[in-house]
Amino acid sequence: MSNTLSNISRPIKDELVQFNEIFRNSLKSKVPLVDLITRYIMKQKGKRIRPLLVMLSGKINGEIGERTHRGAVLVEMLHTATLVHDDVVDNSDKRRGFPSINAIWKNKIAVLMGDYLLSRGLMIAVEGGDFDFLRIITQTVKRMSEGELLQIQKTRKLDIDETTYFKIISDKTASLIGTCCELGCASTTDNAKQILAMRSYGENLGLAFQIRDDILDFEGVTKLFGKPIGADIKDKKMTLPLIHALNRVEKSETGRIKKLIKGEKKENIEKVIDFVKANGGLEYAKEKARQIGDKAKAELAIFSDSSAKESLINLVDFVLERNL
Amino acid sequence: MSNTLSNISRPIKDELVQFNEIFRNSLKSKVPLVDLITRYIMKQKGKRIRPLLVMLSGKINGEIGERTHRGAVLVEMLHTATLVHDDVVDNSDKRRGFPSINAIWKNKIAVLMGDYLLSRGLMIAVEGGDFDFLRIITQTVKRMSEGELLQIQKTRKLDIDETTYFKIISDKTASLIGTCCELGCASTTDNAKQILAMRSYGENLGLAFQIRDDILDFEGVTKLFGKPIGADIKDKKMTLPLIHALNRVEKSETGRIKKLIKGEKKENIEKVIDFVKANGGLEYAKEKARQIGDKAKAELAIFSDSSAKESLINLVDFVLERNL
Repeated sequence: MSNTLSNISRPIKDELVQFNEIFRNSLKSKVPLVDLITRYIMKQKGKRIRPLLVMLSGKINGEIGERTHRGAVLVEMLHTATLVHDDVVDNSDKRRGFPSINAIWKNKIAVLMGDYLLSRGLMIAVEGGDFDFLRIITQTVKRMSEGELLQIQKTRKLDIDETTYFKIISDKTASLIGTCCELGCASTTDNAKQILAMRSYGENLGLAFQIRDDILDFEGVTKLFGKPIGADIKDKKMTLPLIHALNRVEKSETGRIKKLIKGEKKENIEKVIDFVKANGGLEYAKEKARQIGDKAKAELAIFSDSSAKESLINLVDFVLERNL
Repeated sequence: MSNTLSNISRPIKDELVQFNEIFRNSLKSKVPLVDLITRYIMKQKGKRIRPLLVMLSGKINGEIGERTHRGAVLVEMLHTATLVHDDVVDNSDKRRGFPSINAIWKNKIAVLMGDYLLSRGLMIAVEGGDFDFLRIITQTVKRMSEGELLQIQKTRKLDIDETTYFKIISDKTASLIGTCCELGCASTTDNAKQILAMRSYGENLGLAFQIRDDILDFEGVTKLFGKPIGADIKDKKMTLPLIHALNRVEKSETGRIKKLIKGEKKENIEKVIDFVKANGGLEYAKEKARQIGDKAKAELAIFSDSSAKESLINLVDFVLERNL
């Protein structure tokens, strides 16, 4: 299948190379320890999905400029900051197959590095005089932390319904993806309708991405890096496949399954997975993700055809089909 | 002695009451868990030194307005965010005599709450359209995290000299105090010379504040809340009194003291304190703090006399003389 990230990146291949250079330079610090850690972060660069999105969303209207690059650096810096903090809060000792920052340098340094990366990212927007970028990005950081906190609050009581689920994934995941697309688009046009359409594309892409992520927690695909199958159930996270399956059964059965989840035994996790599969949870979530993916694609209708637009359409399918 | 915080606050007494109301409202969130934690934070309000500074620095030029209040909320929000993160990184279970956020709600929630407070503070500047405030504040967050990271890096090797010490305390402490004064002053005047003088006042006040804090680690005053005597030595932090005392003795003696510090025994801490006292470390640090305090006061010369100016002068003495 030709729908690979490398094919999708083709329209902005040169710009992504440039991005890596600019990103590396933006991370330089006079404090040797900061420099050491940022060099470590650069070595294990991720898939750069967010800069990719910023650039394709900019390219759809013409040529990528300095402002597009600034947006890409900003979101990648912010994303990196949240990953560093995430590893602290989850006590993770691995990230992308490498030891995490907190595993090597301890929590104290990891929390401070996250704060440093966050403020450094915001400074780039400030230095560029991009007030609009700042407005969008601070709102995004707020939504991301609120979404995570809502999830924790609700998870404790195992009482997440479908509406709450969508509120949580919209804030914690889709907000940043939507921001990537909005910043990218706004970097090459002033057309408010187009900018709005691109944000909506991104928010929907983000929802589809997270639903797919939650589906993968139930499906038996070995992940090279990342969390093992059933990790969400172990963490008592109620995701769409489980929520739907619970909605379809009697109250007594719901109680039995929630007890299994609270029980925290390994064999319980398998039973919960079987329950979700037997009650159509995965089909339902896949269908929802497909519908949301279609909404994302439909938002692109107002843009003229281009290789960037084609890549954004293909990216939706890539997200829906990914097994990693 | 009339030099109390309550006397110093007199010129802006009503405005501080107003501040508490605005601050409480700014912290409201639709996420119940966020609301619960912010109400908890509000209950144990600190001394509000930073809002006090913003307001006095604004009042020195006339009437405090909406923009001054925005600056005060912004710095207090940022300060609260760093305290919440600090308690995570230091594994503290107490703050101002109350259990810390991480002690009650665990690290995960505390890190996210810190991120939430930081972004919420920045959003207030964004909503007010205050690009200048954003420029100042993001630079400050970067300096604060870099300062902390430099301290950690240097602490490991016990190789902090006086220049490095001043670089560290300038970034981690004085930067935010300077920012309070700059924001406050800029909220009521456009006079660049005055704004610069007020930042310099604040940076020097911040340095004096931190030196005094470091002196208190050696002096036998019981603290009701906060860290016990010798806590810095236990953490292997090299502060001005110790750095100076080490500079005054032979290399062999330096080695002996550093070994004592690395030894981490309780009786060693007392020996290090005695060494610092015997070698004039405290007198030297007090004299330095006094000189820096004088510099702070001198910056105020360009302002007309007012009760706000008098309070800012008295605040320097308060900081130099405080035992808590």
